[in-house]
Order: sequence, then structure tokens, then C-alpha cells
Amino acid sequence: MQNKYFIPEGFLFSGISCGIKKGGELDLALIFLPAGGIAEGVFTKNTVKAAPVILGKKLLKRNKIVKGVLVNSGIANACTGKHGVIAAQKLLETLKNLLNLSKEEIILPASTGVIGEPLPVDKIIKSFPELINGLSPDNIENFAKAILTTDSFVKIVSEKVEEACILGIAKGAGMIAPNMATMLAFICTDAKLSPNWLKKNLKNWVENSFNSISVDEDMSTNDTVYFLSSLKKEIKDLNIFAQACEKVMKELAYLIVKDGEGATKVIKVLVKGAKTKKEAKVLARAVATSLLVRTAFYGGDPNWGRIFASLGKTTIKFEPEKVELYLNDIPWVKNLKPVNQEEILIKEMRKKEVILTIDLKQGRAQGEFWASDLTEEYIKINAHYRT
Amino acid sequence: MQNKYFIPEGFLFSGISCGIKKGGELDLALIFLPAGGIAEGVFTKNTVKAAPVILGKKLLKRNKIVKGVLVNSGIANACTGKHGVIAAQKLLETLKNLLNLSKEEIILPASTGVIGEPLPVDKIIKSFPELINGLSPDNIENFAKAILTTDSFVKIVSEKVEEACILGIAKGAGMIAPNMATMLAFICTDAKLSPNWLKKNLKNWVENSFNSISVDEDMSTNDTVYFLSSLKKEIKDLNIFAQACEKVMKELAYLIVKDGEGATKVIKVLVKGAKTKKEAKVLARAVATSLLVRTAFYGGDPNWGRIFASLGKTTIKFEPEKVELYLNDIPWVKNLKPVNQEEILIKEMRKKEVILTIDLKQGRAQGEFWASDLTEEYIKINAHYRT
Repeated sequence: MQNKYFIPEGFLFSGISCGIKKGGELDLALIFLPAGGIAEGVFTKNTVKAAPVILGKKLLKRNKIVKGVLVNSGIANACTGKHGVIAAQKLLETLKNLLNLSKEEIILPASTGVIGEPLPVDKIIKSFPELINGLSPDNIENFAKAILTTDSFVKIVSEKVEEACILGIAKGAGMIAPNMATMLAFICTDAKLSPNWLKKNLKNWVENSFNSISVDEDMSTNDTVYFLSSLKKEIKDLNIFAQACEKVMKELAYLIVKDGEGATKVIKVLVKGAKTKKEAKVLARAVATSLLVRTAFYGGDPNWGRIFASLGKTTIKFEPEKVELYLNDIPWVKNLKPVNQEEILIKEMRKKEVILTIDLKQGRAQGEFWASDLTEEYIKINAHYRT
Repeated sequence: MQNKYFIPEGFLFSGISCGIKKGGELDLALIFLPAGGIAEGVFTKNTVKAAPVILGKKLLKRNKIVKGVLVNSGIANACTGKHGVIAAQKLLETLKNLLNLSKEEIILPASTGVIGEPLPVDKIIKSFPELINGLSPDNIENFAKAILTTDSFVKIVSEKVEEACILGIAKGAGMIAPNMATMLAFICTDAKLSPNWLKKNLKNWVENSFNSISVDEDMSTNDTVYFLSSLKKEIKDLNIFAQACEKVMKELAYLIVKDGEGATKVIKVLVKGAKTKKEAKVLARAVATSLLVRTAFYGGDPNWGRIFASLGKTTIKFEPEKVELYLNDIPWVKNLKPVNQEEILIKEMRKKEVILTIDLKQGRAQGEFWASDLTEEYIKINAHYRT
């Protein structure tokens, strides 16, 4: 079988059903590096951290040989106290034994799903042989399926740089907001990288991708980005490699917004002409996360006043009279007046992807933030998520 | 006619249709104090301030004799630049002439409605004679109707303290959030107050009422609270009077949340056992404004994990294991476990008013924040507001 993705050397994937979710849906997933590698992580800043987040942070501090990641969906193992951490530890220890790993080798944990329910540890352990059996470089789609919750499609993006591959898999859907609410992403590469270089760069990539999107501004207890490398391939140009990593993560972030619960479109808000990059991003975020703006985009209503009101609620200073709006590069508002026919603007707003450019005309900095529109379907999904 | 409300002496009210809204709906309103009085105001902090906000702030600085407030609904006169200010000034000047007011006497302006459209100045001026003709102490309900936009009912609350009356009228519905988004409130009293005492107290009352509620976290360009007094009645106990003022404003705030666009219930979030009052309010707000919490309350789903996740997204430190939740005083969660049957909790959640108490068990401070639930109806209203 010809693979659709660039699969990095030294990685095996598996995804099976262990019975957490009903109806035999895939819910248990494993990334395995037979020869080991390195890893770095970025985690939720939520005060309430799920057991796998607490444990994953701790494991990464020890600088051991990284052999993989164990992920389950359906139950988040969050708000489960000490028992939750003990449960996650038991899973990892049992899996390590089955894989004959040494003390210096680690498996990282990740979970996503309902908060406050205990993991069915025995059920999961019983499925480990099947999970290990499924390991293969080509089993990426089952892995990607097994990490989903309310997502409607798998999210896989890959790039090739020189001889190295970058493969990213993510899950998102609801609760997506900075920082990375209920979002899991696994970026795998075979490029030879130094842990320090990776650590320094990963934060930026995350800031420009997963921390620049929102579905509902909630931040989850479980958000995790793991970046793993099997260190197999030398890279000559690290700058180009870094750009490719950011590209993969931005594309995953885009897919997460696109699959936002109930979303019918992606709204990319670009604020330019700002005094500072930080202000530009705060403004872009305020617009992209405004419920009134998001419902206006859903309804295809070029109600530009809502955009000005949401810019203003940041209390950042700017001159409304100077601000220019563009919809997919079509001039929308200048001097506080629409400069195009409403029908043309409605047509642009109705597209599946809308780029809203806001030029403040007061500086040279820019920043962006992406969101989905807000629909009745979002309410339906979230009012009855567990039932 | 026996009046349903306590009407302060020295106030006349009027509300008519001048044709801004379609179908003859009331859209122009006037409060008039024949013998004058004093006023204080609290305004939106939005960078983009509507013309009446700019003008109202300026007028109040001059410490003149306050003769009333002119309000229109349907068009916000926001994002209208210099022309908007000139239009509002022209309306006020014309009205002052018709009422034979001197230079030292002022009428305050307020507007609410669609942003970015110019006021139909001539149409409004043409209706002034009818507006003035309608002035009466009993015409409070027409006034209250004429200031509404997407509201579904009028909001009037009154109290009597000693010989004085406090009468509050508000409009809200969508875009309600701190600070007081698209919210207008007019508090009228005949109590004799010093301007300084009023100024000092009004900020607190607003903080504990209109700035403790949210419908959609957007902050409007037009939010205004005017507090007016005709100074007719001596008050012996100013503390009791102050409490009554706060009560009136809290009840108006409650009505605004209750009438939140598409809302089926009011959620009162009380955080207690916090280290500081400020932290308590930040936490209460985070929970009350979480889309996931609000949709869970709409669906009657006792998904307590969402409450913990929304507390945690503030990144304020607390121990999840210690936190206790109560629904209308019925114990819900202790030690990270539900302590009551799901059916009992669902029944409580389905009530029209739900008090969610969150005890952090780490201090003695408390704070509260009220919100409506989030429903499909909210989306429908806001996706197609103008059409």
C-alpha cells in the first residue's frame, strides 16, 4: 500500500477499541519508537490538570529515553485526584513490562474525554496485547481515529524536509482555546535535533498554531502537545526544518478549527497596522472569539459594527475612523462606512473560509487568530454531550 | 390609575414611535425633570465609544442643571465619527429649544441598536412635539418599551425608602457583559443626595449589579448607566438608601440576564471560600461565562468536570480535591465525586433559576456572577439580527 503521508523512520502506530467508548469505536492508541528517541511537551495551563498531564510533565523532566505515547479517548482522567495518577501509572508500568522496557525508558501518557470519571484500568490492560499487535508504520489512521472525541474527521498532516519526515496527528473539536483546550497533538519526526533546540522552538510553534485558535475559549484540563523524534536523519538546514514544523502545526490547528463543534466555516482574523505584535494578537483574538462576530459570520450578516465593538472591548487604544476592514481582500469598511455592495460582502462571508483583515493604520505589527463560526449545532452537541 | 411602581417626585416620562424601527414600534424616549436635578453616569470602557457616550461624559463633567435624558433605540449612533456627535448635539439642542431650557441646563443622550448607521435626525426632530406631549409621571411603561431592542420584556424596578422613591428602568438582552455591554439603565430618585456621595457609591452599585452579569461577554459601544435625582426628599439613613439603590440595580441586572437572548434560565454562580474577593469574582465569572458550562445548564447535564475546567482556566491556584459544589444548596460534588443521584441534580438544573455554589475551602472571601444559559435561540437571534 502506497502511504498518503510521510512517515518518519523509527515510529510505529496502533489504534484499537478497548471498550471505553460504546459501539466498538476506537479509543486506545499507541505510538512506539522501537529504538527510542527524545521528546518535548507543552501542556495546559489550567489549574486543574488531568492525571496524564501531571504525569507527562514529570516524566519529561527526567530526560530519559522516550519509547512512545499511550493515548486513550472517551475518559479524560481529569478531576480524579491521586487515584487518577495511580491509574495512569499502572497503565504505563504494565505496558512497559509487556514491551520489555528498562527503567530508563519511558512511555508518555495522554487522555481526552469526559472529566471526573475513573479510567477502566483492567479493561485497558486487557487490550494491551491487541494494541501492541497492531503496531505498524502504516497504522497511522487508526491511531488518529482512536484519539478522537466529538471530532468529525481525523487530523493528519505531514511534510518532508531533506531526508526527514514530519508527521503530525491531532484531535480537537470542542473546548479549543488558548491555551490549547481539549486538544491533543503528536508531532513525530526522524530528524536529528538537540533537545535544547527543540525545547526553545516548540513554544513558538505552539504559540503560532494551537495557541492562535479558538472554538469556544474554554481551556481544558488535558491539553497536550508532544513532539517526538527518533533522531534518525541528519538535517542540514534547521531553519527550513523549523518552518516546516510550524507549517505542520498550523495546518493541524486549521483542521481543528474547521472541525470545531457545529462549525460551518473557518474565520481567519488578521490584525495589521498595530503598534505591537502582542496588541495585534489580543485584538485578533477579541474579534475571533466574540460570540456576536461568530454568529454574524454564521448568518452571513456583514454587521461590521460588531467587529469594531469587539476590537474596542480590549480597551486597547486605536482610532476607529482610521480602521479598514477587508473580507478575503475585498474592501469592506473605510472611514466608518461600507465601501462595497452588501450582496458582494454577503457572498464572501458565506464562503467556507473567510479571511477578515483589520488594518489599524497605526503601526507595523501584525497578529492573527482563527476561529470557527458559532451555530445552533454547537449548542446541540454541548448541551447533550454525555447523553 | 393606581401606579404599579414608586414614581419619584419631579420626573416625567414619555415613549413614542418616531419611525427608526419598523412597524410603529416605540423607539424614542424622554425623561424630563421640570425643576431640574443632578446626575451621575457610568459608561462603557470600550475603546469605540458611541457618540451619545462621548457627549454624555462631556456634559456630566460640566456640573450643570440636569433636566433629563433623551433615548432612542434601533440605531446606536456608534462608529459614526464626527457626524454622529454632531447629529446627537443637534437633537439635544433642538429639544432644549423646544423645552425652553437655558444654557446651564442639560439633557443627556443615550442610544442603542445597530452600529454604524446614521441617526435619522430630521425624523426624530419631527417627533419631538409628540414626545414632549406624552410626558407624564405615569408614562413609565412607554418609556421602558421605547428603549428596548431585542429585549422580550420591559425592565422596571422600584423601591421606597422613607419618603423617597427609587425607580430603575433598563434594557439589555444581547451583548451583555462587563462592562455593561449594550445595556442602558436609568435610575431615578427624588432623594436629596450630594453629587460626591452619589459619585462614590454609584461605581460600587454598578460593580455589584450590571458588572456582575453576562449574556455573551461582548461589551458594547453604548453602555450607559445614568443616575438622576430631583433632590426633592430628605433622607435620614443614607446607608439604607444605598442598599436600596444597589437592590434596584441588582434586580434590573437579574432581569437583563433573565431576558438574555434565547435564555431559558438564570445561572447565579457564587464562589465562596476564596482567598480574595477579586479572585472569587474572577472565578465566578469564568464559570458563568464558559460556553461549555452554559450549554450544560441548558441541556440539564450535571457535567461537573466542565465547572472544574472553567475554574482552572483562570490559572488561579486552588486545590481541586477540596472544592465543593452545590446546586440550589443541594450537595453536588465533594472530594471530586458526585454526592447525589444524577436525577436529583438534573431536576435542579432544569429549574428556571439555578444557584451554583462553589466552595473553594481556602479562605473567607466570596464573589458572584450571573449568566444566562446558551441556547440555539441565541444563535438564531444573533445570526440574523439585522435581517
